[in-house]
Amino acid sequence: MKYAPRGWNSWDCYGAAVTEKEVRSNAQYMAAHMKNAGYEYVVVDIQWYEPGSQNNEYHPFADVCIDEFGRLIPAENRFPSSAGGKGFLPLAEFVHSLGLKFGIHIMRGIPRRAVAENCPVKGTKVTAREIAETASICLWNTDNYGIDPQKSGAKEYYDSIFELYAAWGVDFIKCDDICRELPEREEELILIHEALQGCGRKMILSLSPGPALIEKAQLYMDVSNMWRITDDFWDDWNLLYGMFERAEKWSIYAGNGHFPDADMLPLGAIRQVYEPTYRTAFTKKEQITMMVLWCMMRSPLMMGGELTKNDPFTLGLLTHSGLMALHERSRHAHQVYRKHMGENEIILWTSMRAAEAGAGYDGQYAAVFNAAGPKASITLDPSDLELEGVRDCIDVMTDEQVSLTKPISIEEHGSRLFCFTWK
Amino acid sequence: MKYAPRGWNSWDCYGAAVTEKEVRSNAQYMAAHMKNAGYEYVVVDIQWYEPGSQNNEYHPFADVCIDEFGRLIPAENRFPSSAGGKGFLPLAEFVHSLGLKFGIHIMRGIPRRAVAENCPVKGTKVTAREIAETASICLWNTDNYGIDPQKSGAKEYYDSIFELYAAWGVDFIKCDDICRELPEREEELILIHEALQGCGRKMILSLSPGPALIEKAQLYMDVSNMWRITDDFWDDWNLLYGMFERAEKWSIYAGNGHFPDADMLPLGAIRQVYEPTYRTAFTKKEQITMMVLWCMMRSPLMMGGELTKNDPFTLGLLTHSGLMALHERSRHAHQVYRKHMGENEIILWTSMRAAEAGAGYDGQYAAVFNAAGPKASITLDPSDLELEGVRDCIDVMTDEQVSLTKPISIEEHGSRLFCFTWK
Amino acid sequence: MKYAPRGWNSWDCYGAAVTEKEVRSNAQYMAAHMKNAGYEYVVVDIQWYEPGSQNNEYHPFADVCIDEFGRLIPAENRFPSSAGGKGFLPLAEFVHSLGLKFGIHIMRGIPRRAVAENCPVKGTKVTAREIAETASICLWNTDNYGIDPQKSGAKEYYDSIFELYAAWGVDFIKCDDICRELPEREEELILIHEALQGCGRKMILSLSPGPALIEKAQLYMDVSNMWRITDDFWDDWNLLYGMFERAEKWSIYAGNGHFPDADMLPLGAIRQVYEPTYRTAFTKKEQITMMVLWCMMRSPLMMGGELTKNDPFTLGLLTHSGLMALHERSRHAHQVYRKHMGENEIILWTSMRAAEAGAGYDGQYAAVFNAAGPKASITLDPSDLELEGVRDCIDVMTDEQVSLTKPISIEEHGSRLFCFTWK
Amino acid sequence: MKYAPRGWNSWDCYGAAVTEKEVRSNAQYMAAHMKNAGYEYVVVDIQWYEPGSQNNEYHPFADVCIDEFGRLIPAENRFPSSAGGKGFLPLAEFVHSLGLKFGIHIMRGIPRRAVAENCPVKGTKVTAREIAETASICLWNTDNYGIDPQKSGAKEYYDSIFELYAAWGVDFIKCDDICRELPEREEELILIHEALQGCGRKMILSLSPGPALIEKAQLYMDVSNMWRITDDFWDDWNLLYGMFERAEKWSIYAGNGHFPDADMLPLGAIRQVYEPTYRTAFTKKEQITMMVLWCMMRSPLMMGGELTKNDPFTLGLLTHSGLMALHERSRHAHQVYRKHMGENEIILWTSMRAAEAGAGYDGQYAAVFNAAGPKASITLDPSDLELEGVRDCIDVMTDEQVSLTKPISIEEHGSRLFCFTWK
Repeated sequence: MKYAPRGWNSWDCYGAAVTEKEVRSNAQYMAAHMKNAGYEYVVVDIQWYEPGSQNNEYHPFADVCIDEFGRLIPAENRFPSSAGGKGFLPLAEFVHSLGLKFGIHIMRGIPRRAVAENCPVKGTKVTAREIAETASICLWNTDNYGIDPQKSGAKEYYDSIFELYAAWGVDFIKCDDICRELPEREEELILIHEALQGCGRKMILSLSPGPALIEKAQLYMDVSNMWRITDDFWDDWNLLYGMFERAEKWSIYAGNGHFPDADMLPLGAIRQVYEPTYRTAFTKKEQITMMVLWCMMRSPLMMGGELTKNDPFTLGLLTHSGLMALHERSRHAHQVYRKHMGENEIILWTSMRAAEAGAGYDGQYAAVFNAAGPKASITLDPSDLELEGVRDCIDVMTDEQVSLTKPISIEEHGSRLFCFTWK
Repeated sequence: MKYAPRGWNSWDCYGAAVTEKEVRSNAQYMAAHMKNAGYEYVVVDIQWYEPGSQNNEYHPFADVCIDEFGRLIPAENRFPSSAGGKGFLPLAEFVHSLGLKFGIHIMRGIPRRAVAENCPVKGTKVTAREIAETASICLWNTDNYGIDPQKSGAKEYYDSIFELYAAWGVDFIKCDDICRELPEREEELILIHEALQGCGRKMILSLSPGPALIEKAQLYMDVSNMWRITDDFWDDWNLLYGMFERAEKWSIYAGNGHFPDADMLPLGAIRQVYEPTYRTAFTKKEQITMMVLWCMMRSPLMMGGELTKNDPFTLGLLTHSGLMALHERSRHAHQVYRKHMGENEIILWTSMRAAEAGAGYDGQYAAVFNAAGPKASITLDPSDLELEGVRDCIDVMTDEQVSLTKPISIEEHGSRLFCFTWK
Repeated sequence: MKYAPRGWNSWDCYGAAVTEKEVRSNAQYMAAHMKNAGYEYVVVDIQWYEPGSQNNEYHPFADVCIDEFGRLIPAENRFPSSAGGKGFLPLAEFVHSLGLKFGIHIMRGIPRRAVAENCPVKGTKVTAREIAETASICLWNTDNYGIDPQKSGAKEYYDSIFELYAAWGVDFIKCDDICRELPEREEELILIHEALQGCGRKMILSLSPGPALIEKAQLYMDVSNMWRITDDFWDDWNLLYGMFERAEKWSIYAGNGHFPDADMLPLGAIRQVYEPTYRTAFTKKEQITMMVLWCMMRSPLMMGGELTKNDPFTLGLLTHSGLMALHERSRHAHQVYRKHMGENEIILWTSMRAAEAGAGYDGQYAAVFNAAGPKASITLDPSDLELEGVRDCIDVMTDEQVSLTKPISIEEHGSRLFCFTWK
Repeated sequence: MKYAPRGWNSWDCYGAAVTEKEVRSNAQYMAAHMKNAGYEYVVVDIQWYEPGSQNNEYHPFADVCIDEFGRLIPAENRFPSSAGGKGFLPLAEFVHSLGLKFGIHIMRGIPRRAVAENCPVKGTKVTAREIAETASICLWNTDNYGIDPQKSGAKEYYDSIFELYAAWGVDFIKCDDICRELPEREEELILIHEALQGCGRKMILSLSPGPALIEKAQLYMDVSNMWRITDDFWDDWNLLYGMFERAEKWSIYAGNGHFPDADMLPLGAIRQVYEPTYRTAFTKKEQITMMVLWCMMRSPLMMGGELTKNDPFTLGLLTHSGLMALHERSRHAHQVYRKHMGENEIILWTSMRAAEAGAGYDGQYAAVFNAAGPKASITLDPSDLELEGVRDCIDVMTDEQVSLTKPISIEEHGSRLFCFTWK
């Protein structure tokens, strides 16, 4: 995987209530305006199996749609093309026809409804009640029970759902209620990983919710492609400020095919299910700061806003060629320092720039963030970047040549992104 | 500081009992055999002020030597050139005459003897009893009380000792009982840093003992040049095995002028004070593994063994040109993975190689460690190193060309070090 | 309440599987052989609403019997007299006809089946799903969800079940999954207490499971009549040994109408559901030790064995007139000391003996336990009991006069019980 | 020991600075006015060995007076009769001549001065430095180091100081820096206990500071006569309020010869060393409340105020015949309940009254405290006291007959003390 996944996820704008029509129009927008910039995943978030879902809230003990084997299937009132037992296949085929990829959200475990009805587990003689782990529940959603990995039939249930997803043409699974539930649910996570590996179709595995546990970093790297390092992220400066500390801690675990995930981008037209005219509360400076951090640390870029309501700034930021290059070519990124300078708290990151073609590195990025305090004027010390004899430096956002011998200015909550090259 | 300090420290071979004669002969050996490889610091460790010290053990309530201002001075029976109030000046001058630098160990605080005698603090009207912090004691050594940073005279006492060290020509201070004593002793640490900064002579500040606190990383970077990330390190595989986890955690905090310190190198003739024929218990493979890890993570290289008893292997390892280059040119080092492969636990690190002249990077290092299990045969996946289109790869220890398309073998507890270059 | 409740509970012999026939025969036995000694409660323990229950094990997601309002009702196959919607009324009337009282076990909360079927809450417009607290589950039994006390309908559901129990003629409620679940379930406990108070019938409230929380002692005293200070107690010396520490801690909280509960008495023919010939593993000495401790600390005496299989020793012990008097008349009981004497660990308790008629106290009990070590010979020091000028002392178990000026002997795991009187 | 010790301690009025003259005049007052009421101990608190002590503050690294064996001796400037090596013998003889007993305060351990001078330990070949435990210091006083009980000479040092105290005629030792220092200092405590037992003179052993550890209750009972259950207690309602919880927890550990200690009574003229006109900040109601609690729970009664400045209320309260009888005759005391009644928090205690002569009990005490809220009107329920057929009830403070069928009134922070008798 050349760079971390990019795409769109329905949660930030439609919560638990997105409809097929909305998914299709966002996919069409992505194909027209963002595909060339590398965005490809269209992901339907939680509760697609609940006919009555209306916004971001969960309904305790909701009546969910399941098939005869206790597997969740799309609510037909919300996803009409799924009628007649077709599941997500027609919608996935539509997305694929646009040159994009299709993803869905799942919760670990088995529906409580399957337990109440004691459905058989496909291909086995056991039933839902025999594999459900009675004391393993999600604390914020009542749809499922956990599955006891020790029970006969547990593996087969997970195999059966991935078999179904493969048949539908799913390319991306966001599995919830598992990421921060370690070490308790480690065996269940491994069952999920193995079911995905064995299903015959290549899929991205994304783990939620955060914060992930740093002492389990190698496990996340081994079994998934991305894992949430934070609780839900929204358009609030405090949350963005808090991300710097998490990014610092997780930086060295980003690599080819496995990426710490700073969560979706709450940009543009989010929270649509509550207020159709709502726009992100982040200032433009903060939006840029977020994108610089996400791209440098190689977090996935999953846009949360309704795409068709993008304004030019939002679309421009999401597809900015300098940022896209950073996201694709940043390597070995890490924080250099975080310190108080006068009234400001300044954070410096750096990363290598992979050569566009061929092997090796042909540049070094540096990002400076004004994490607290008013507009700052800062002189960068090249020795902090361990770059000696710097030749050229570009301001990536503006593509202008800059000399670091003079102080640079950074807006409140703002950032500056530079690229040094040599020879 | 181009690379982390290199030198010799008296503790591993002479404990608390080194003599001037031994220091001089080690300095002479260093000048003759190791200076060209970049070794320069000759450091006298703890208890140089105690006439009766005989080995690695501390004497409770030992009678230490102090001057009229309650400042420790060398024990004349062990450091004859200090007679007549000359302190360490003659010995430092000797070391300087060899083109090397001179260092000493200190404990934070003020001697209990100075408190018992209630010595005046130089340049003030206060006395030792007024600045000693009564409840701040070292748990493993009774020589000192801590100093209460809030007390008038506290700063002046620290200024007075650094004034003395500057007059002696000291280049390196290893300050003990402070590194892991945070946050309690943070203010005292800052007093020490400021006294050093203000003393008029440039000195390295090294903090002990470990393990340092990761949440204080920026503070260590701000006030010191190296800080111990581990408790005392000896020639025991379990301790070396444990260092990988510490190195993983601390890697991103190494940078120009500030280095996480994995402790001295217990190589060659250590523990001489107990057994003059003792040699390090590490196998040759383990010694190489240690050197590869220390050099890649940029830990200081402070040899602990009696230098004049070096055998050719030990001297060769300490001055190996490939390792010295790694130590000097490694940048942005970090662990890539640590996982079980068959019977083995394999750890992979990587770092950038700074260009020897001019800016930028001209290569990438990779080190593979066989941390557990028998001799291993491993196939490295270049995508883990995110190097595409690799052209050349050198086995650094042997200087031979290697192709990573075939499995590589690694001895038990052993390691392999490669360097990739491009264009 | 003159003394702590006495009676029989079905758990120790029949687990979750007792039948009406067994309840009736135990009640008949109690009326014939134990009523005169003060035993009166006949209690049906857990799972009386589950047709398929067979022993001490719980069935995950069992199909339980409920009425139209989601209230548990007896399984007709096990309690035939409940047929036709009569509930426990016929069985309670039978027990009452013998001059005894009738009790049942309940779990806090509402059946998961009521939630799955979304039953209405009696007398309200809300349904089971609206009052169930989704994340509040019992960790060892899947029958119920907890109830969210903040929800409209929560109080009404608890009122509705106590209304039903009152109509059945229930005299004793053993409420489970609540005692040690504080402070989280404190509000739910208060709802239960208030529903009982308001139901129009006097009932004992017994709380399970233990260990109860000492810092909540006043709450247990305020809302219940007995509360479990221990996890399940069985015929194992280690459990009996452990009870001394719990008894020591809880002693001062026993008083008129509120009693710390050391759990049922695993005597005689227990574990019948597994092995009809099984008898308690406690030796006779241990059985006496248990009874002395329970009676002195005023724990409820709920016999766990199948009564009709009592042998003479068991019946004699359960109805021993000296022990019954201790249980009725012990006041202000507490441990005096617990110490090592030679090879033995000796525990001494004391309590006041309430006058049989009229006010005040006419004697003082002392119990000595040989908690560890071989048969012991111990001289009691009257000053430890703060009794000066002792006149008469009776060995309560044998009714013989004893002089404490000579050593007394105590068997391994045994005990001696004395009563001092004056004037 | 018929009842807990009563006496006077110099701390509350003179801190660390009491003089012989003050001790003598307080002893004379006690003999004249309080001896008949059972007060007998005259205790000199901390720092009697420090010439420069002036108030409640400790001087870091003070110059203390020691003899040739490193044993503390009285400062002659403050205790003139000790001149010529007589120690406390003349003062003890004076106190004895009044029919009273004499006590002193000590810290566990050995003077730092003895370590600095490396004094020999009497009767051994070891020295102070060899037995001092280097890392065992008191956090609030610098006079001593702890003693390492494992070291040869440790026992002998403690024996040597108790030998000295016995020779002086000391009757009471208040040993500090030991009570709450368990389990770390348990062995050192046992050395002290054994040294006292072996010194040939009967002495009370009092342990400080609190709060003591409840899990070590049996140890305190075994090795001492009283132990502090609280940190320093002063004339502040919040501290008195907090004592109820401690008293509740410790009640069952009071018995013949061993008493939980609620600390000295800060009554009358306390804090004299700072302000000679200062009087206790407790209201009269609060003073009575304190005395009722202390007497019922059988805490020692050590008056803290300068006796010669007692006003009639203070002297009357300290020697009140009803309270003195309670203190002498209370047995099996414990809290009955602590609950909210309307605006008030009401606490009820009860205890047995030992017969004045002969064996057994002839009454029952009840104390009601208004721990929070305004003046209260409360109806006591005799069933809470488990007294049936109550005949007579006396208000102990006023000696009037009271009927509990009517509500009783209790002032804010006030209390009522009743005694029931029968036949």
